[in-house]
Amino acid sequence: MKALGPIPAGYEADGDGRLTIGGWDAEMLVNEAGGTPLFVYDSRRIADQVSRFRAAFPGVALHYAVKANPYAPLLEAMAVLVDGFDTASAGELGKVAHLALPISFAGPGKRDQELETAIRAGITVNLESEGEADRALAIAQREGLTPKLAVRVNPPFGLKGSGQKMGGLPSQFGVDHDRAPALVRRLIEAGADWRGLHIFAGSQALHADALIELQHDTVALAASIAEEAGHPPPEVNLGGGFGIPYFAKDQPLNVEAVGDALAKTLAGRPKILADTQFAIELGRWLVGEAGVYLTRIIARKESRGRTFHVTDGGLQHQLAASGNFGQLLRRNYPVAIAGRFGSAADEEVTITGCLCTPLDLLADEAMLPRAEVGDLVAIFCAGAYGLSASPTAFLSQPMAREMLI
Amino acid sequence: MKALGPIPAGYEADGDGRLTIGGWDAEMLVNEAGGTPLFVYDSRRIADQVSRFRAAFPGVALHYAVKANPYAPLLEAMAVLVDGFDTASAGELGKVAHLALPISFAGPGKRDQELETAIRAGITVNLESEGEADRALAIAQREGLTPKLAVRVNPPFGLKGSGQKMGGLPSQFGVDHDRAPALVRRLIEAGADWRGLHIFAGSQALHADALIELQHDTVALAASIAEEAGHPPPEVNLGGGFGIPYFAKDQPLNVEAVGDALAKTLAGRPKILADTQFAIELGRWLVGEAGVYLTRIIARKESRGRTFHVTDGGLQHQLAASGNFGQLLRRNYPVAIAGRFGSAADEEVTITGCLCTPLDLLADEAMLPRAEVGDLVAIFCAGAYGLSASPTAFLSQPMAREMLI
Repeated sequence: MKALGPIPAGYEADGDGRLTIGGWDAEMLVNEAGGTPLFVYDSRRIADQVSRFRAAFPGVALHYAVKANPYAPLLEAMAVLVDGFDTASAGELGKVAHLALPISFAGPGKRDQELETAIRAGITVNLESEGEADRALAIAQREGLTPKLAVRVNPPFGLKGSGQKMGGLPSQFGVDHDRAPALVRRLIEAGADWRGLHIFAGSQALHADALIELQHDTVALAASIAEEAGHPPPEVNLGGGFGIPYFAKDQPLNVEAVGDALAKTLAGRPKILADTQFAIELGRWLVGEAGVYLTRIIARKESRGRTFHVTDGGLQHQLAASGNFGQLLRRNYPVAIAGRFGSAADEEVTITGCLCTPLDLLADEAMLPRAEVGDLVAIFCAGAYGLSASPTAFLSQPMAREMLI
Repeated sequence: MKALGPIPAGYEADGDGRLTIGGWDAEMLVNEAGGTPLFVYDSRRIADQVSRFRAAFPGVALHYAVKANPYAPLLEAMAVLVDGFDTASAGELGKVAHLALPISFAGPGKRDQELETAIRAGITVNLESEGEADRALAIAQREGLTPKLAVRVNPPFGLKGSGQKMGGLPSQFGVDHDRAPALVRRLIEAGADWRGLHIFAGSQALHADALIELQHDTVALAASIAEEAGHPPPEVNLGGGFGIPYFAKDQPLNVEAVGDALAKTLAGRPKILADTQFAIELGRWLVGEAGVYLTRIIARKESRGRTFHVTDGGLQHQLAASGNFGQLLRRNYPVAIAGRFGSAADEEVTITGCLCTPLDLLADEAMLPRAEVGDLVAIFCAGAYGLSASPTAFLSQPMAREMLI
């Protein structure tokens, strides 16, 4: 038996013991969407996360990292909740350009045409290198425009316990911190509208202490770069890194503790940052737990003493849940049998997708209530890095549906 | 410094030291395709592999496993080279249905509608469980058709040293071998056109000895199932499992040794298999080395003493090359600078894609000839499980192009 991840708080059963999402019966949502596999995103949960952020981080701007989930109706819902969109490609820019919020554009491999599109549209470009700065300034000059440029910094520290460490090392992301002041001065001398600094050091952290230390160090680094550059930054994007629990024993992040500490850090910040607008950029934490992937059992079979549920979904829609997206060790996501939500787990089963590959595993040796062909399996924490981060064309299976409720 | 995988034999430089693919300059192919990132598949290399198979395995049928690469022009080229297509979804069926070759359909999660489509089209369904047999027989009866049904067997042995072990264990694939004879009898009694057995025990093997032993055991198992069922199988699909070298120290599979041993095995096969047609099902081995992924350097940057090439490609097209598709350990694929193919490697670089994630690594700390912005990077072994096995929508980057030459 292998443990399942923790089901996010707030998912409940109706009177018949069936999973509801946003108050709606899961089976009814599948009917409405036209079938399985289906990603359901609960807009109320997203709004609740935003409220929680607002209460914990008063005065700090909230940006949504589009890469976490670029489903168009979700972006539209997000536009009335957050203060800006952080994008990572011209494709993402195109998905939010009509939504009338400030946009930034990061990414280590921006093509000239992408830079031109962003500069023409008045979008803030987070520069990842001196070479990219040269290209952006040349394009702006050619077009006769004043570009909005921020500097992404590769900090000398990383996010401790982070799922993905992104600082303190040689990196394709950002300008090494000791070269940032010179670049800032150069941008300003070249007549650019310098928007400030972007310092992103890791993601998927569950320990408040690590984020508290990181944000403290990030504010100090921003001040020191600003001092050395001799210019106060209009904005500092402190990055994100707020994680959600996926696996057994994962504990939720104490966001309020992070907020309290950041308030103290900002209250005591160096004078050069007095008028700076601080922002935090979140993706997974805002939308991850709001998403549920629903897939139907096509076959129930026994093999050599083990029971398998073969579903109509799989890693082609939920690569991370299969354990094959950069994970060193496969662990089970939170999973439930939708029609028997909250019933006692009375059998051990392995749940697979429908692909002809042993990689296609959705829950391995999991204790769950008994289920039959036709039952719905719910995989939680499916709102971020789900469908858009999966190989949807693999084995030419049908595309998953998505719906925002 | 980390080693690169071995470049497949036969890729050559022209007089100016530039990579050619199928005799064409890589840069010219990119121009013709309209830009990078680009997958080029060399049909001559595919035909050469087929010829090599034919010489090594006289009298054995060759099937192409569509899941390895379902690019339409490649399937058309394949149709005149092989004896059948093995598919794993209705989507794949749809891609080869017009190509006038025998088709089989495997997969542990076949929907009723997929079974119906296959049975109506006269396609051989490889049954993965008794429950699926029930459904297939019911559909055939309802439609008044004689279904072509084979039994996929979960063997009591696996492929030693296989990248993906698929036998000898509880499995979602196939019917446990000791239950196969009863199922065969039932199919025949129900009036089905029993086509035989499908026994697939693993993939990506590089050691001839392991495949020789596996094929020997597979023939023996087929005979014993047939004896117990009391019916000779018209066909036995021996599976595939032929690997290609991806990483440093990988040695190519000695296919001729496997063929010689299989010929001896078949010469001495039990009488019940005397009239059986044997088939081998290959994907990766036929097309993997025929594919090259070409991506252009957008930025060359230094960070803390390391040099990075940031390209316009990435894991959104080449997930396996990034080391994030089920690999426990990230190792470098074979990679070259196309314009300086065969030049001395004179600097250590890390090559990344353009995505905003540290997972997006195409070559880590690799020794390569010096390259600049605008140069083409070639990633070899990109013909199988490349574009169709990658999260193409991730970060909303442009789609890769494909071309068959």
